[in-house]
Amino acid sequence: MLERRTPIPIAEAVKKIMDYQLNGSTEHIPIEESYGRYLSEDLAATSDVPHFDRAPYDGFAVRSEDTLDASLTNPVEFKVIDHIGAGMVSTKVLDKNQAVRIMTGAMMPEGSDAVVMLEVATTYEKDGTSFMSIKRKHKQGENVSFRGEDAKKGEALVKKGTFINPGIQAMLATFGYKKVPVAKKPIVGLFATGTELLEVDEELVPGKIRNSNSYMIAAQIERAGGEVHYFGKLPDEFDTCFEAVKNAVNEVDLFITTGGVSVGDFDYLPAIYKKLGAEVLFNKVAMRPGSVTTVAQYNGKLLFGLSGNPSACYVGFELFTRPIIRRMLFSEKPHLRKERALLEVDFPKANPFMRFVRSTVSFENGRLKTAPSGLDKSNIIMSLAGANSLTILPGGTRGFQAGDEVDVLLLEDQQGSEWPW
Amino acid sequence: MLERRTPIPIAEAVKKIMDYQLNGSTEHIPIEESYGRYLSEDLAATSDVPHFDRAPYDGFAVRSEDTLDASLTNPVEFKVIDHIGAGMVSTKVLDKNQAVRIMTGAMMPEGSDAVVMLEVATTYEKDGTSFMSIKRKHKQGENVSFRGEDAKKGEALVKKGTFINPGIQAMLATFGYKKVPVAKKPIVGLFATGTELLEVDEELVPGKIRNSNSYMIAAQIERAGGEVHYFGKLPDEFDTCFEAVKNAVNEVDLFITTGGVSVGDFDYLPAIYKKLGAEVLFNKVAMRPGSVTTVAQYNGKLLFGLSGNPSACYVGFELFTRPIIRRMLFSEKPHLRKERALLEVDFPKANPFMRFVRSTVSFENGRLKTAPSGLDKSNIIMSLAGANSLTILPGGTRGFQAGDEVDVLLLEDQQGSEWPW
Repeated sequence: MLERRTPIPIAEAVKKIMDYQLNGSTEHIPIEESYGRYLSEDLAATSDVPHFDRAPYDGFAVRSEDTLDASLTNPVEFKVIDHIGAGMVSTKVLDKNQAVRIMTGAMMPEGSDAVVMLEVATTYEKDGTSFMSIKRKHKQGENVSFRGEDAKKGEALVKKGTFINPGIQAMLATFGYKKVPVAKKPIVGLFATGTELLEVDEELVPGKIRNSNSYMIAAQIERAGGEVHYFGKLPDEFDTCFEAVKNAVNEVDLFITTGGVSVGDFDYLPAIYKKLGAEVLFNKVAMRPGSVTTVAQYNGKLLFGLSGNPSACYVGFELFTRPIIRRMLFSEKPHLRKERALLEVDFPKANPFMRFVRSTVSFENGRLKTAPSGLDKSNIIMSLAGANSLTILPGGTRGFQAGDEVDVLLLEDQQGSEWPW
Repeated sequence: MLERRTPIPIAEAVKKIMDYQLNGSTEHIPIEESYGRYLSEDLAATSDVPHFDRAPYDGFAVRSEDTLDASLTNPVEFKVIDHIGAGMVSTKVLDKNQAVRIMTGAMMPEGSDAVVMLEVATTYEKDGTSFMSIKRKHKQGENVSFRGEDAKKGEALVKKGTFINPGIQAMLATFGYKKVPVAKKPIVGLFATGTELLEVDEELVPGKIRNSNSYMIAAQIERAGGEVHYFGKLPDEFDTCFEAVKNAVNEVDLFITTGGVSVGDFDYLPAIYKKLGAEVLFNKVAMRPGSVTTVAQYNGKLLFGLSGNPSACYVGFELFTRPIIRRMLFSEKPHLRKERALLEVDFPKANPFMRFVRSTVSFENGRLKTAPSGLDKSNIIMSLAGANSLTILPGGTRGFQAGDEVDVLLLEDQQGSEWPW
C-alpha cells in the first residue's frame, strides 16, 4: 500500500519547527578560543574607552592657550620639561609655555589640553635644555583622544548571538573578558541509514556507494555552528534502526538521520517515529528537492529525517535544521540570509513546486547574480561543491529567463535573515 | 634626530612581499577534520559517479521496448519478478514484460533500460504473483542515472587551494578520501610590544590599556587560515625585545609584531631588524591607516612589523600578511576579494593618501553598498567590530559623495582576488 502524504508549504513547515522554543545555553571559554563562536550575552562597555585622555600622535602636549599668538612670522617657544612613552605617566604639571614630549597612546599630562604633532614642531637645545617652537595656534582639545570618546562605560556594544570576529575579539580584550560567555555548540546527533552505503575507505562494489551524506551534513553542522556527534551508519533493518535511534536521541540536542524517509519499502523512519511515540510535524513539503523531509518532535527534541538524496539532504538541512542551530546560538536572524540577484541562465520549464537550485552567486559591477553551480538533476553531487547559495524559483505555471530578478539564500554567511519566506 | 622614511605605493609594497615565494606544505588529515581547510592537491575523480547505472526514483525497472504499445486505452502488464532495495543487486535478467521493483539508488537489473515511477504504475496481485501495469510508453534510458553521469573517472574536479566546504567534503567521501591532503596551516608567530599594555585580566590603571591587538590579530590569523603562536607581550626595552624576536623567529613560518614601528623614541623594531641582519623591504607605505607598517625578510622568512594602532594593525595584516598566508594555503587568489560598491555616505575631505575605511557592506535590491562601520578616526577600535570590508578611497585632491562607485575589499570571504591593486 502506497502511503499518501500531504505536502505543506515551506513557510508552514519552517514555522512548525521554529515554534519549538529550543533555548541555547552559555559556557565561558578563554578569549583565545572565542573566534568564530557566538556571544551568549549582550556586551556593554565595562569602562570608558579610552579610559584617560591620550595622545593619538607622537608630539608635544601643551596648553592650547599658550599657542594663541603662534603664527608663521611669530614662532612660540616651549620648554620641554618631561618625556614620556605610552604606558608612562608624567608627574609634571604644565605651566606657561611648557611642553611634555609625548608618544602615541600616552596619557595627557596634567594641565595640557592639546598635542602638537612632531612634524610641525621645531626642536632644539639650549644649554642642555630641550625646547621646541611652533608657528601656528592649536585649539583646545586639538589632537587629543578624550576619555570615553570610543565608548562610555555601560554603553551597549554588541548583541548576544553575534558572531565573534577579529574586531569583537579585540573588544572583548579591551573590556577585560579573559573568559567569554558564548553559546554552547548544540550537539547534533547524526545517523546515516541505507544498506547501500559503504564506508569511505571501502572499495566500490556493484550496487553500493560510499556514504557521503554524513560527511556533507557534518560539515554543514559545523558551518551552522553546531557540534557533530556521528553515530555511524545503519542498515535498512527496522529493529536495529529503532534501537539505535532510541538510544542516541537522549545523548544529543538535535537529531538527524539521512535516508529512510521516502515511501520506499525499506524506508523505516516513519515507523520508527511512530514506535518511539514521536509527533510528526510534517512528512512532505511542497518543494524540490527535499520534499520527503520529515521532522518530528520527541520529548521536546527535534528529529530531522532528511532525504538520502544528497541534494535533498543538503537543502533540507539548510532550510530546516540550520535555523534551529542558529537559534540555539542566540541568533535573532537564524535563517539563511535572503538577497535579490539576477538570474544568469534560463529555466524554461515551469514547475508547480518551489525549487531551490544549488547555485554560485557572484558580482558584476556590484550587482549580485546567480547561476546553477552544476547540472541541476537532484542526484548530482558535483554541483554541491560549487554551491555558495540556493536560488529560489517559486512554483508556478511559467519558467524563468536570464535577467529575471530572483531571491537567493546565501550559504556562507554569518548575518542571516529573520524570516526569508 | 627624526628618521626620514620614503613611503612607497601600496601595490609596490604588496609586490615586494609577494615576490618571496613562500611555499606551503601538505599534511594528510582525517576527512572528519577537513571542513574549513584548504586542499593542497588538485582533485580528480577516482571512479565514475555513479559507478553503475542506477534508479533515481522508486519504481519498476523495465525494458523500454515492452512499453511501446502502452497508452491510456491500452495498459500494458508486467510481471514483477524481483524486489530490490538500494545496495542490493538483482540476480534476475529481465525478459519480455517482466519488471523488477526497485528503490531509489538501486542498481538497474540486467536487461532493464528504463524506470517506471511508482506513482504512474498500477500494482496488483493475481494468484499470489505481483503485477503492475502502465498506460504510457517509456523511452530508452528514461529515469535512469547512467554510470559516469556525474563524473567520469580521472575527470578534474577541484583545484588545490580550494576551501573545503560541505559539498567538497561530500565529494571527498565519494572518492574514498579517508585521509585528505590539505595545506599545513602556516604557523604565525606573534609578539605585542608596548610598555603601556596590560594583560586582559589586569585592572586598568592610568596611562595603560589592555592588550587587544594580539587577540585581534590572532583572530585575523585564524580567519586567514593560519595558526597562531603567541609569544606574549614585550616591554619597550631594546635588549629584551631583540633576544625575544631572535629566538622566536626560528620557531615559526611568519612573524608578526604589533607596535614599535613608529618613529617614536621607544620604537625599537627598526633597530632590531638592523641588528638581526634582516633586510627591510619597506618601512612606510602611502596609505591610511597603516603607513608605518614595516616588512623585513630574514633568512627567507617574512617579518611583519604592524602598527600598534589597532586600525592600522588590522588593515596592515589584511593587506600584507593575509595574502602570504593564503598563498601558503595554495590559493591562486590570495588577496582580499575586490568588488564594486556604492558609497552610502559623503567623505567630503580630500586626502593625498589612499584610505582603507573599515566598513560594512550590505545589499539593496542586489546592489552592493558600503558605509563606514564606525567613526573613522584611526584609533577607534569599536568600528572594527562591525567591519566586514575595507572601502578603498583613492588618494587625490577631491572628496567622495554618497552614490559614488568605489572598490571594497571583502574580509569574510574564501574566494579572494588575484591582484586587487
